[in-house]
Amino acid sequence: MSASTDRSAINLRNKLAKIGDLWTPGIAAALNDYHVKLAKIKGDFVWHSHADTDELFLVVSGELTILLRDGEVRLREGEMYVVPRGVEHKPVAQEECHILMIEPAGTLNTGDRGDDERTVDQPQWL
Amino acid sequence: MSASTDRSAINLRNKLAKIGDLWTPGIAAALNDYHVKLAKIKGDFVWHSHADTDELFLVVSGELTILLRDGEVRLREGEMYVVPRGVEHKPVAQEECHILMIEPAGTLNTGDRGDDERTVDQPQWL
Repeated sequence: MSASTDRSAINLRNKLAKIGDLWTPGIAAALNDYHVKLAKIKGDFVWHSHADTDELFLVVSGELTILLRDGEVRLREGEMYVVPRGVEHKPVAQEECHILMIEPAGTLNTGDRGDDERTVDQPQWL
Repeated sequence: MSASTDRSAINLRNKLAKIGDLWTPGIAAALNDYHVKLAKIKGDFVWHSHADTDELFLVVSGELTILLRDGEVRLREGEMYVVPRGVEHKPVAQEECHILMIEPAGTLNTGDRGDDERTVDQPQWL
C-alpha cells in the first residue's frame, strides 16, 4: 500500500465525458489485474470472441444489444451481461450508448479479430 | 461454452429487490473467478482489509462513505472506488444504500475480521 492512498471517487459520467471517439474504450479503474473500461458506442461493432476470458458489459446510459450466434441480449441502463469466454458476440447500438466493461488488462476490444481497424491496442487512462 | 448460452440481462435493481437483509451480499454474476455482488447497507460496517485482493465498490443508489485510516471516500450513485489490497476500510451509509461489489469469488465481506457476526461465508446467488 502506498503512503497516500488515492481517495478520489470515480464518477462514471464524468469519465465518459472525457471520451471523444466512438468505439474507443478508456480505462477508468484497475482491480487487481483487471481493467474497468468505459466506452461510447453507436452502430455495429465486429463479430469477435475472447478465448481466454469472460467479458462483463454494464450499460451506463442508452441501450445495447449484444448479438450472439444463437440469439441476442438487450441491455438497458442499469443492466449487465457477462459474455462467456469463447462465445462470439457483436455489440450493436442504434443510438449512442455508454457502457462499462470489465476484463483482464490487455484484453483486446476486438478479441480474435485484432486485425480490425477499430482495434485499440493500448487504451488510455481516463 | 455450453450448448445454450444464457441470454438474460441482469437488471441490478431487480436483483437488489431480492435482497431482504442489510449487510448480506448476494451474487449477481460471475466473471471468470470473480463475483459481482450486490448488497443493501445502512449504518456502520466493521473495519477490515483484504490482504490478497483489491475490492471494487459502485453505488447503484444512495450514498456510501468508505472510511480509510487516512481519510474517506464519498460515493454517490454512479460513482465507484477501488479499495487497494491490504488497505483497512469501513463502509458507512447514513441512509440505506445499494451497492455493487466486484472481487474474487470467496472473498469474505469482513476480510481479516472473519469472526465478525456479519460475516457471510457463502453468499447466495440472486
